[in-house]
Amino acid sequence: MASFSWTEEDVLRCCGSKRFAKELASASPFSDLHHAIQSARGIWFNKIDVAGWLEAFAAHPPIGSISPSVSQWSKEEQSAAIATATDTTLQELVDWNIRYQEKFGFVFLICASGRGTPEILAELKKRYVNRPIVELEIAAQEEMKIIELRLARLVKSDVGS
Amino acid sequence: MASFSWTEEDVLRCCGSKRFAKELASASPFSDLHHAIQSARGIWFNKIDVAGWLEAFAAHPPIGSISPSVSQWSKEEQSAAIATATDTTLQELVDWNIRYQEKFGFVFLICASGRGTPEILAELKKRYVNRPIVELEIAAQEEMKIIELRLARLVKSDVGS
Repeated sequence: MASFSWTEEDVLRCCGSKRFAKELASASPFSDLHHAIQSARGIWFNKIDVAGWLEAFAAHPPIGSISPSVSQWSKEEQSAAIATATDTTLQELVDWNIRYQEKFGFVFLICASGRGTPEILAELKKRYVNRPIVELEIAAQEEMKIIELRLARLVKSDVGS
Repeated sequence: MASFSWTEEDVLRCCGSKRFAKELASASPFSDLHHAIQSARGIWFNKIDVAGWLEAFAAHPPIGSISPSVSQWSKEEQSAAIATATDTTLQELVDWNIRYQEKFGFVFLICASGRGTPEILAELKKRYVNRPIVELEIAAQEEMKIIELRLARLVKSDVGS
């Protein structure tokens, strides 16, 4: 595979921080996915300030949300959660999401890929007791996992086009 | 000394986070300063979200600022810095403050009480290389030290009144 480049718009499909999109697009071209992810990690953890992290978090729907505005990528990432949800667990997830958001000021973020609703709910309850600064760092790590999955999709969709 | 209570307005003189002011005022009355500071620490580190921390940071002028809007308490806390500043070090402090703010998105915070400008400048340069999340936590710890000094002043001014 030849080297490839991304525009800011490409990167914004993977992460809602405008500064991240600008920095990663500027770091193009990349020799392969591994190279792109290494750059993305360096930028995300070292160059994006806290306001940029919060901007990225705000681009996610609450987990379990079935609003029509939820992107296809979010839906696919949450397919295991949706498949294992009952009305009761889904309602519990909605309630705990609200409590979480009230405490921390941002949506509960978890790389949901392959995780069922009971597991996500257990994780949410466990993380709810954390101090805000601890939870901010965990959320940023989860966001990075989501970014990695989406950058891989972006590479595949480039190859296919 | 009898127990004492603070209003939200009292606490806002010590820290710009409205949530912090509300929580600490609600935790009144306090038996003594130690009791008040223990409550303040618990609230600041466990109950104030990241947006609340940023709100508190935003209430501080850049260190070394001589704007007329700087509060008397800020001026007194920075008196050692002002006394040891030369035109050159003051300009360097202004320049580094701007660089810091561009990287992290908030003003450089340090409990300046008793510290000269060369020491503050050296600390700023050392902290500038930190990751944003690391610097956020250091800034929150410095903010707490400033809050403690100001709560002590508040107690003294209550006693004097």
